[in-house]
Amino acid sequence: MKGLQKKSPIRVVQYGLGPIGQGTAKLILEKQKSGQIQLVGAIDIDPKKVNQTVGELVNAESDVVISANAQQVLSHSYADVVVHTTSSFMPQVEEQLTQCIQSGVCVVSSTEELPYPFDRHPEIALRLDSLAKYYGVSILGTGVNPGYAMDVLALVATGVCSNVESIKITRRVDAGLRRLPLQKKVGAGMTVQEFQDRKAKGGFGHIGLVESLRLVMSGLGWPIEDYSEVLEPVICDETTETPYLTVKSGRVAGIKHTAEVLSGDQVVVSLDLRMYVGAKDPEDRVIVTGDPPINLVVEGGIFGDTATVAALVNAIPQVFQASPGLKTVADLPVPRCYLGKV
Amino acid sequence: MKGLQKKSPIRVVQYGLGPIGQGTAKLILEKQKSGQIQLVGAIDIDPKKVNQTVGELVNAESDVVISANAQQVLSHSYADVVVHTTSSFMPQVEEQLTQCIQSGVCVVSSTEELPYPFDRHPEIALRLDSLAKYYGVSILGTGVNPGYAMDVLALVATGVCSNVESIKITRRVDAGLRRLPLQKKVGAGMTVQEFQDRKAKGGFGHIGLVESLRLVMSGLGWPIEDYSEVLEPVICDETTETPYLTVKSGRVAGIKHTAEVLSGDQVVVSLDLRMYVGAKDPEDRVIVTGDPPINLVVEGGIFGDTATVAALVNAIPQVFQASPGLKTVADLPVPRCYLGKV
Repeated sequence: MKGLQKKSPIRVVQYGLGPIGQGTAKLILEKQKSGQIQLVGAIDIDPKKVNQTVGELVNAESDVVISANAQQVLSHSYADVVVHTTSSFMPQVEEQLTQCIQSGVCVVSSTEELPYPFDRHPEIALRLDSLAKYYGVSILGTGVNPGYAMDVLALVATGVCSNVESIKITRRVDAGLRRLPLQKKVGAGMTVQEFQDRKAKGGFGHIGLVESLRLVMSGLGWPIEDYSEVLEPVICDETTETPYLTVKSGRVAGIKHTAEVLSGDQVVVSLDLRMYVGAKDPEDRVIVTGDPPINLVVEGGIFGDTATVAALVNAIPQVFQASPGLKTVADLPVPRCYLGKV
Repeated sequence: MKGLQKKSPIRVVQYGLGPIGQGTAKLILEKQKSGQIQLVGAIDIDPKKVNQTVGELVNAESDVVISANAQQVLSHSYADVVVHTTSSFMPQVEEQLTQCIQSGVCVVSSTEELPYPFDRHPEIALRLDSLAKYYGVSILGTGVNPGYAMDVLALVATGVCSNVESIKITRRVDAGLRRLPLQKKVGAGMTVQEFQDRKAKGGFGHIGLVESLRLVMSGLGWPIEDYSEVLEPVICDETTETPYLTVKSGRVAGIKHTAEVLSGDQVVVSLDLRMYVGAKDPEDRVIVTGDPPINLVVEGGIFGDTATVAALVNAIPQVFQASPGLKTVADLPVPRCYLGKV
């Protein structure tokens, strides 16, 4: 009740060592000094990473050797929690998550479809939930977005409202300040035609926007009958350089991705995400029309790369202590920094 | 997992029918239309209220008769949850809370010392926690402040931080817009001497500020060795009228109440509450110095009277579903509006 007082450290396996996974591994190693958490295994299939130590890969102190054999790592590391960072999509990760669960290990995952998988992938969600309950472990998808900026913050904003008429959630991110994969993910530098072609193929835009919408609706106990989703390019109006690329005027600077739910002809919940190179005045904002009205803002916005890594690591003790099953961030205690300073 | 799907309504007893209790009773009656919650009993000792119906008292539809016999109401109403709004202080409410727990009913209480009672009243806290576990019910103290503005919001602000150096929490409230008891509670209209005399007697200032501080520290897993607390009058510099009273220039307009924890000579967590008649630009703000830094603001502030009532009612389903024991808002899922529109 007075904070975590676990005697032995939480044993963590890092599953996936791309940019986010390297970030979580490094952060876990930093927090390892507290004696309350310990990195005990690392999984990645990249031949260039296998057999390296995590210490070598992320420039930190760690003798944990990266292995491509997930089953072996999971079976022999006596892990409590897996931090899973491999793919955005449920079908690609079901087998990996199943393996973790069957090894009796809780999971925190960055898979963007996992924070609310019950509608887009109801059968996978049911399988994972049943399995997690059977094996007595809990599993959670989170991150900064989905998992915080456009869902948890919105729910929290309504926490002192007696009534809510509508919620408007906006997030404006300057992609120019983010890592290259994110700049590419939002289409920075593409022609409009390239953008439209890429969009037509699917799996483009911000993965997880609809999951945030579902989290908010479900968290408030509001049924969704239907929703609309629009993905458009934001066009660069002035040639802009980032540390990684140059976006010429007239090319795509990034995305405007929106989703909304109507009740009758009134918009009940709307999400408006703009992530593009050169975005001015980044911020996260939740406007609740209700009693009392709430206008909650994170001034300057939440810097995504650092925040996603933090959100995943901060969820470790929460998932470890949760009751078994497939959880959402709306089921767990209020998020907070885990093993921060002092 | 997909929101509340209880078949029979949550049965609620209102314990205490002062301004806040009338507000919660009225709000419960409004939400009763959903079929998911029902007011089934009401307790107050005021002879003017006893034997009235709640409907008459709060100008709503309800045949529930107000009774001074708490034990009888608790024994015969088959209640699930008591909303308890009688006093700010633990020693005054222990017997009432004990009676609720022994009747097998969960409790949401506005008692300002209850959101974090483990340090100021460790023995009472232990007794209530043990008893609640024995009877299989949960008990929670909450409201807007303590319970949200200066604690939950601060924890949530750190939810995407990998590290936190310090947290600065400020709340600025225009007491002139609030109800008369609050204006009196902050000393509006007193002479400075009267303020100091009243302060010397104790139980003055904002009850719950230190509880918020403790909630934040405990939520982050940070030990408190010592803290400092300062209560000062804010002096009115221009005669100001409220709907209830006039504060002359030179008199007390309200309070500045601060609390902080040091680590070495660095302030780690500070709370700064200013609640006075004529306060300009009300707002709630959390500044996290950390990685990433977070600057979270509720623009215009959170209007306390409505919000306290809402926070209590919103906690009803959470307390009802929680595991047994004395809980804090940091133990429960992220707060959100319960049975709001749509």
